[in-house]
Amino acid sequence: MTTLKNDTFLRALLKQPVEYTPLWMMRQAGRYLPEYKATRAFAGNFLELCRNVELATEVTIQPLDRFDLDAAILFSDILTIPDAMGLGLYFETGEGPKFERPLQSEGDIELLAVPDMDKLRYVFDAVSSIRQALGGRVPLIGFSGSPFTLACYMVEGGGSKDWRTLKTMLYSRPDLLHRILDINARAVTAYLNTQIEHGAQAVQIFDTWGGVLSHAAFQEFSLRYMQQVISGLKREHEGRRVPVILFTKGGGQWLEIMAQSGADALGLDWTCDIAQARARVGSQVALQGNMDPFALFGTPEAIRAEVARILEGFGPGSGHVFNLGHGINQFASPEHAKILVDSVHELSRPYHI
Amino acid sequence: MTTLKNDTFLRALLKQPVEYTPLWMMRQAGRYLPEYKATRAFAGNFLELCRNVELATEVTIQPLDRFDLDAAILFSDILTIPDAMGLGLYFETGEGPKFERPLQSEGDIELLAVPDMDKLRYVFDAVSSIRQALGGRVPLIGFSGSPFTLACYMVEGGGSKDWRTLKTMLYSRPDLLHRILDINARAVTAYLNTQIEHGAQAVQIFDTWGGVLSHAAFQEFSLRYMQQVISGLKREHEGRRVPVILFTKGGGQWLEIMAQSGADALGLDWTCDIAQARARVGSQVALQGNMDPFALFGTPEAIRAEVARILEGFGPGSGHVFNLGHGINQFASPEHAKILVDSVHELSRPYHI
Repeated sequence: MTTLKNDTFLRALLKQPVEYTPLWMMRQAGRYLPEYKATRAFAGNFLELCRNVELATEVTIQPLDRFDLDAAILFSDILTIPDAMGLGLYFETGEGPKFERPLQSEGDIELLAVPDMDKLRYVFDAVSSIRQALGGRVPLIGFSGSPFTLACYMVEGGGSKDWRTLKTMLYSRPDLLHRILDINARAVTAYLNTQIEHGAQAVQIFDTWGGVLSHAAFQEFSLRYMQQVISGLKREHEGRRVPVILFTKGGGQWLEIMAQSGADALGLDWTCDIAQARARVGSQVALQGNMDPFALFGTPEAIRAEVARILEGFGPGSGHVFNLGHGINQFASPEHAKILVDSVHELSRPYHI
Repeated sequence: MTTLKNDTFLRALLKQPVEYTPLWMMRQAGRYLPEYKATRAFAGNFLELCRNVELATEVTIQPLDRFDLDAAILFSDILTIPDAMGLGLYFETGEGPKFERPLQSEGDIELLAVPDMDKLRYVFDAVSSIRQALGGRVPLIGFSGSPFTLACYMVEGGGSKDWRTLKTMLYSRPDLLHRILDINARAVTAYLNTQIEHGAQAVQIFDTWGGVLSHAAFQEFSLRYMQQVISGLKREHEGRRVPVILFTKGGGQWLEIMAQSGADALGLDWTCDIAQARARVGSQVALQGNMDPFALFGTPEAIRAEVARILEGFGPGSGHVFNLGHGINQFASPEHAKILVDSVHELSRPYHI
């Protein structure tokens, strides 16, 4: 077990004193980096890249070689679990993820089961490999889609503007959706625990689509199952606490109830005012976020001003991990990403004296 | 001037006593109605339907003949103003609105000007015609897109998943965006005032895309210009107050600042908890909303339960106009829409004793 050289990220998640505000960027290993595009081209396609342990390790490390980031995140897809359930994940060029066999009938749903974790071994192997490659530089974040977000794709068969198929089930056959969600929650728990056992030092649950629900439906169909996951997670490993970050895109209205989920930190999208968010959650959880990814399309001065605004909004003290409010855009400039990273480190020091 | 037979909607917006909670449905004249589809087919296409005073009147009245709605809303498009500015609005089959000549250069933006309202005469003629056709059954709502929402399409050239072009301008050349927004605000003010002069008895500003902004950017680029519009509106006509409704989709986090805009009521999308929303805005404004449009895809019992939940959330007293949290979906069943309308009227009476 290598000593962790930079544990600022983990300390901030636990609201322990830090010297500066740590940061990472959602989708930091991605298409905005030419070196990522080269590796992906070599792999053939996105899924092959996820399944190739050596190449997945390579792209995970790439952004750390360029930027002074405080955490690495496993390179993988949020839909590996339903793929392992047999739904047949695939990507069409220029489009989002799709399933060959979505859940289209009550029979499909009856047959659904928690997959054998052995089918996801390529993910756990990547976790081990990345940990080794990191050599203790920064902590490694593991992740999963939330039970609800997985269900969105599993029922709809792919991405959707309005999730009509999913919502029709939610409002007409909630019993079927609850069955899917319970299986997903058990699968996500096993999946994250196995990532932790293989070396993930923090885990994030991506609830990308929870924000399309009503307040009441969010509690019943998304938050409840994330709580089920969190309550089943291994929270200590290698002698350290393994923090859990909950990120519901569009969940800014629901921070109070999310803060009671058992998570250590909440991810904020860019629509949230981080000062208000901190006042609302108090000392219950740390916060992660929340610059608009498109602020990187501004001038260097505008990027620094936006960083300063968010740091000032959170204010003094630990409990803030800087991030974008959503994944970095594929057309963002790596030079501007560097300005972001360096500005956060430089401008945050006065808040940690 | 005909006497208004049912002014429940206007009274609720002004928080005056009512006998039941009034309702209308966003996009109530639309593709979910076979009679609408027939008229639209006759017109040839959507824009021809908007521009034909007789047919626009016909489709505006259609949902009132089917359902016991408490307001009519002008049938038109939110992008009539930029079309009148010369940007060339068009629709491709199955796609959203597009502009032939979006604002692509600084020169385009310099040439932009408030259009001659005479170019929008077909809209004002429709307002007059609908008022006459209504004969005082229910009030007529006029509307406009918000300055920011118009700018989204004007800069991007059409709809977008992430509004990258618009946001690049926002973060790199905010001065250019401010120029567009100021012109839009002046145009929207003149447009709504002319609708009011022609008989619109309430007006709604649709800020469909304000919710894609950060809290800070929302205030600077959307709310500020809606306030400019509201401060220039004619608030009395035909001896009655003309209420203004502000609807920012995805704006649930910002209700407190929106309540100070000068609007009489705020529209809520379905993600908001209406009980919390009422507590947050206090007595400053009425609220309109906010059932998930996809709740209409549930069983009749589920629809009634959702209506009951929202009515209970708002609680006793006036100041609530029931609505969907977004436009009714084209695949919704008219029979289920009728269940919604009748349930709201029936179940709301106990809250107004």
